[in-house]
Amino acid sequence: MTQRLRLKKNADRRLKAGHLWLYSNEIDIAETPLKDFEPGAQAIIEAANGRSMGVAYVNPNSLICARVVSRDTDVMLSRSLLVHRFKQALSLRERLYARPFYRLVHGEGDLLPGLVVDRFDDVVVIQLNTLGMEKVRDDIIDALNKVLSPRVIVLRGDTAGRRLEQLDEHVEIVQGELDGAVALEENGVRFETDVVSGQKTGWFFDHRDNRAWLNAQVAGKRVLDVFSYVGGWGVQAAASGALEVVCVDASSPALERVRHNAALNGVEDRVSTLQGDAFEVLAQLKAQGEVFDVIVLDPPAFIRKRKDISAGERAYGRLNREAIRLLGRDGLLMSASCSMHLASDRLIDVVRGSARHQDRHAQLIYQGHQGGDHPIHPSIPETAYLKAMGVRIFRD
Amino acid sequence: MTQRLRLKKNADRRLKAGHLWLYSNEIDIAETPLKDFEPGAQAIIEAANGRSMGVAYVNPNSLICARVVSRDTDVMLSRSLLVHRFKQALSLRERLYARPFYRLVHGEGDLLPGLVVDRFDDVVVIQLNTLGMEKVRDDIIDALNKVLSPRVIVLRGDTAGRRLEQLDEHVEIVQGELDGAVALEENGVRFETDVVSGQKTGWFFDHRDNRAWLNAQVAGKRVLDVFSYVGGWGVQAAASGALEVVCVDASSPALERVRHNAALNGVEDRVSTLQGDAFEVLAQLKAQGEVFDVIVLDPPAFIRKRKDISAGERAYGRLNREAIRLLGRDGLLMSASCSMHLASDRLIDVVRGSARHQDRHAQLIYQGHQGGDHPIHPSIPETAYLKAMGVRIFRD
Repeated sequence: MTQRLRLKKNADRRLKAGHLWLYSNEIDIAETPLKDFEPGAQAIIEAANGRSMGVAYVNPNSLICARVVSRDTDVMLSRSLLVHRFKQALSLRERLYARPFYRLVHGEGDLLPGLVVDRFDDVVVIQLNTLGMEKVRDDIIDALNKVLSPRVIVLRGDTAGRRLEQLDEHVEIVQGELDGAVALEENGVRFETDVVSGQKTGWFFDHRDNRAWLNAQVAGKRVLDVFSYVGGWGVQAAASGALEVVCVDASSPALERVRHNAALNGVEDRVSTLQGDAFEVLAQLKAQGEVFDVIVLDPPAFIRKRKDISAGERAYGRLNREAIRLLGRDGLLMSASCSMHLASDRLIDVVRGSARHQDRHAQLIYQGHQGGDHPIHPSIPETAYLKAMGVRIFRD
Repeated sequence: MTQRLRLKKNADRRLKAGHLWLYSNEIDIAETPLKDFEPGAQAIIEAANGRSMGVAYVNPNSLICARVVSRDTDVMLSRSLLVHRFKQALSLRERLYARPFYRLVHGEGDLLPGLVVDRFDDVVVIQLNTLGMEKVRDDIIDALNKVLSPRVIVLRGDTAGRRLEQLDEHVEIVQGELDGAVALEENGVRFETDVVSGQKTGWFFDHRDNRAWLNAQVAGKRVLDVFSYVGGWGVQAAASGALEVVCVDASSPALERVRHNAALNGVEDRVSTLQGDAFEVLAQLKAQGEVFDVIVLDPPAFIRKRKDISAGERAYGRLNREAIRLLGRDGLLMSASCSMHLASDRLIDVVRGSARHQDRHAQLIYQGHQGGDHPIHPSIPETAYLKAMGVRIFRD
């Protein structure tokens, strides 16, 4: 018989609102001690009055001690539920995109807490970010084979989430063989990326729509792409008619791939690269008197924990100020943040302050978010993390 | 010599941050009594320490007693400044759009407080929402002629803003002649609308991008467009391949125009109309067992003042619940709000609650805002008002 996990009084409210997480301080540990649960085991969640609320997997060693996988107490996390959820997820992506390159599963946003699956046609890359998902690893692989029959499955176990769950960190090709980089297409532009040793799963599908918007603004422009990684923004800008693109990144292998991706699209003559720390490169470009029409700032998360908010906001401020100094009289800034802890309003305020600091006017003409293949669970604010602000910066 | 308007101590902070408004309780009326100003006159704003901060027009009879038109104390609101600002505004729109149909001037967002100009090729429609703008009406018309040479200029003086400024309400064709409806194109779809007696300026350009997103989701679908007005959403959906579209509105003339606009695009066989109160029509459709794949909710502002927030949120909730009842197993809801007082997060919460109420899952897959021709002034939250949430609603 399935174990039951009892909530304290009133601790069922968030679940009723649709949320999927339980914190360890919400458990009635007198009734159902967390230490009685095998880490990763599934349990039926019950309210303080004994009413069953759904099925969750439990990790007594994590702050989020349980995540709901089903609101039906008869439905456990199994191969069969995974197949069902994968089909639901696939059906959304097939409606949104003509080509098979997208995030197929976005964890809680697809009702599969802790699981991420990115798809590059017949290569899929998975992240198992919780012990509960790690436990059904074989079922996940079976279900993916049933729904997609991928040629290759790569497991990226090198995630921050796994550390919090006290899981080991490793990368593994669990099915098929990979011969170098993997191809993808975004907004009609071709790329190759390394899904085994690249950042995260090798590609950031979340900015697809934001890049599409920017692509329409760059014809004939001089573009600076800061934190370019393998050229998602910069190479697309060049392929969309930008006169000249400079990609800046700290990683030499990433910039090598930028050049390769530019060549894949026949725009290598309009894309150059600068390796170094973003802040140092921006200062150096300013000293050289360089001026750009369009600047993209797509930094890594400067705020990873709530306690880093004020230091992080200062870093975003400094970055945006330094970039604005490089814009011409009437320029366009695409300022992004993937920090869940930085609210949209705060990012707008960072840009506002940075423009005022240089005595320039700012018009917010685009507000972008993560694409539809990263669905937001409306009860779980943590599933919404990406912001991209398109701002015209001009002197009066 | 230009009169000076002195601020109280610390009342200059918002202006320093870039805001353009002054409230009557922020004025040092001992130094510079508001009653000494001729309504609509321009004045130099000075901080409590006497430092000049810019030029504003003054209306002693309005809660917002002054609006900044220039941060340069030598630059008054004149034909010459209007020409400069119109050129700046036009340059942005010409970068954003291939065709001459857009909001050309979005008030504060274009540094022209109180002025709205919508462009339908050679027909422009203007709203003068403040006394300060009313005073330079002739300069505005001159400047528009200098920058755009429109054939027709229509003045829509029937706005709520004018009431607050104690201005008369009237509609007037101040230049050229109009022979019936005016043509426009949006997302490649043709429309005609009445700029003299239609809602606002006759068209809502602000949803252009949101409609474009939805257009890509409707092929083969059954679509319900609630508060359709002249068919902005519904006719575009039909022209984008929707199987069947039902447009609901309280206004017979609007629905007549829906049918005409459908015919303009050769989709009249796939667009039908239902006249009546939206809530009643939704209930009636439910009673008839109707089911839709996609539902658009684009209601008028349910919240016009801060004090209406809770009643307004209840109305949005009721509307969204009634709509979700009409969606099939796996449907798409486009839920919009143009209420500045309803924050994005609150609208998401309205949709979340409405879906939970019907025991359905919700995935937020699109967050839209007003288009780039309605630029947001990042210091003035009031310039951001439009939200459009694309939500997949499904049963597990």
